[in-house]
Amino acid sequence: MASTQALINRQWILAKRPEGAVKPTDFIFNKGELPVPGDGDVLVRSLYFGYDASQRIWLTEDGGYMPSIQIGESMRAVGIGQVIESCDPDYATGDLVEGFMSWQDYLIVRNDGPMPLRKLPKANFPLSWNLGIFGVGGLTAYFGVVDGLRVQPGDTVVISAATGATGSLAGAIARALGAQKVIGIAGGADKCQWIVDNAGYDAAIDYKNEDIGERLQELCPQGVNAYFDNVGGDMLDTLLLHMAPEGRVLICGAMSSGYTDVKLQGPSNYMRICTHKLTVRGMHLFFYKDEIPAAAAQLAAWVEEGKLHVEENIHEGFEKAPGLLPTIFSGKQPGKLILKVANAS
Amino acid sequence: MASTQALINRQWILAKRPEGAVKPTDFIFNKGELPVPGDGDVLVRSLYFGYDASQRIWLTEDGGYMPSIQIGESMRAVGIGQVIESCDPDYATGDLVEGFMSWQDYLIVRNDGPMPLRKLPKANFPLSWNLGIFGVGGLTAYFGVVDGLRVQPGDTVVISAATGATGSLAGAIARALGAQKVIGIAGGADKCQWIVDNAGYDAAIDYKNEDIGERLQELCPQGVNAYFDNVGGDMLDTLLLHMAPEGRVLICGAMSSGYTDVKLQGPSNYMRICTHKLTVRGMHLFFYKDEIPAAAAQLAAWVEEGKLHVEENIHEGFEKAPGLLPTIFSGKQPGKLILKVANAS
Repeated sequence: MASTQALINRQWILAKRPEGAVKPTDFIFNKGELPVPGDGDVLVRSLYFGYDASQRIWLTEDGGYMPSIQIGESMRAVGIGQVIESCDPDYATGDLVEGFMSWQDYLIVRNDGPMPLRKLPKANFPLSWNLGIFGVGGLTAYFGVVDGLRVQPGDTVVISAATGATGSLAGAIARALGAQKVIGIAGGADKCQWIVDNAGYDAAIDYKNEDIGERLQELCPQGVNAYFDNVGGDMLDTLLLHMAPEGRVLICGAMSSGYTDVKLQGPSNYMRICTHKLTVRGMHLFFYKDEIPAAAAQLAAWVEEGKLHVEENIHEGFEKAPGLLPTIFSGKQPGKLILKVANAS
Repeated sequence: MASTQALINRQWILAKRPEGAVKPTDFIFNKGELPVPGDGDVLVRSLYFGYDASQRIWLTEDGGYMPSIQIGESMRAVGIGQVIESCDPDYATGDLVEGFMSWQDYLIVRNDGPMPLRKLPKANFPLSWNLGIFGVGGLTAYFGVVDGLRVQPGDTVVISAATGATGSLAGAIARALGAQKVIGIAGGADKCQWIVDNAGYDAAIDYKNEDIGERLQELCPQGVNAYFDNVGGDMLDTLLLHMAPEGRVLICGAMSSGYTDVKLQGPSNYMRICTHKLTVRGMHLFFYKDEIPAAAAQLAAWVEEGKLHVEENIHEGFEKAPGLLPTIFSGKQPGKLILKVANAS
């Protein structure tokens, strides 16, 4: 069992629904009770919390593809934890697990959500990688490039939010599938340099200082065969004007919206889908549950072969949980944003 | 050779670029010269002009997927004509042809455009059908349902602008492929009745008098598997909220825009593509040139089997050419809008 000290269950609770950008003051700190597991429950101690832009969607009234987080509840996050006590025969004390958790030291999880509560095997890579390359970001990049965009040898591929948890891997995955040219879009000269130096991109477009349309014309005069859209807004609209006939677009995110309750800006150039016979696919990890083990194995092989670079941006300390959330949108550091809150025992 | 009377080459010329909805006064009548064919040219006499919403796009500064029609040029239309004199060895005097033509009695056409100048075989159906079921509308419906939407047995299919040249055929094509439920969206009780009585639809939604979202909820509680969008705007946005997971959307037109120079309204619910793993495809006939003969044969077989109903809305008289153009958007009559200007000799 956990030590006395650990029995204080620190929590970050939603105090009020954010208006516009999420702020640390939307949450309040609380000391809760240690929850008692019932039949089918697993009592887990939190070790790592991952940060995802989706968390902002869960904070809207609607919640998007997940139930909305209610005021008074602790903030949901995809995390890694260790089983303290289990009333589910599939999990045992000491098991390391990854799945939907929340910002508290101890919590009950059940393996009945939209994604399996993944039991983490012993592995020769850091535990936190299960939130990044083998977590939401890496798997989204994998299924997005492989199934959503169906990248083929010779393709010219463009990826937005190219320093993010997904984008920092998607370029190299496209390259591994034989893409001829892989271009990333990022904000600022440093990030643009970083993706070329570290993340397998051939070229970068700095959306803060360059005209995306002009740069696409220079870099892809024959048009873009596959575009991985994490951003939406004007960027998606510009890309639609530069797609090659029969090109493919993946709708993966809309970072430009900040995921607030404000109505999204739809792509007004969407008739290019018609005139250029484009295919636009969406992808969501919930649809790929059964394929995750094979995808993770392929990602691990690419890491082994030096084809994928893993970048993590790890912070430490439970108290920092709310303060880091807004930075997922400002995103000054490349790679997967992670908070470490405890060591595994 | 043509008679003396026919040698007067009546023309409708673009006088000024339309602002907003196209008006008959955007065109002026002219008596031109009989053109003289040069090498590779085919001199054609106009017999029928088809009307397509795309004509409004060709009148914009941009022109869309075709060169913009310039002021002083006769108005472009897909039509049927008869060869008067040919300097292209593939065509002979007397041949009946279908392709890009313009609003004049006589004109030069060349078989070097984006679509082949189609030589029409002798057939046991009316010549005008080559503009409707075997023309743009029918082929668009065919490739849209078969390749764009990939309708499967058991699908629930929704088609907008269901009384139009395309929509009046698309429902029955979906049915022929095994769709379980085919729902059309049209404006007004009469049109809604017409598609159920004549065009193979199971049910209709009257967008002028009913709430589309509520009716979709009633008619398709499990969601829509395939949506054929001819309309865009709010209708596309509403449909996106009612698509079943892994549903397919075809982007075929944006009638709600009137195809003016005004920026299109993009679908603000497009993130449903992501969360519901939708596939959105575009289609444009230019991409299907080689498959047209097989498609036409299949359409003919379905007509023969009584599975497709052909509806034409034929007017007569060259002088009516500009007056009919705006009615493609108001569309009071179902089926393909056609103007007959001469008899074949």
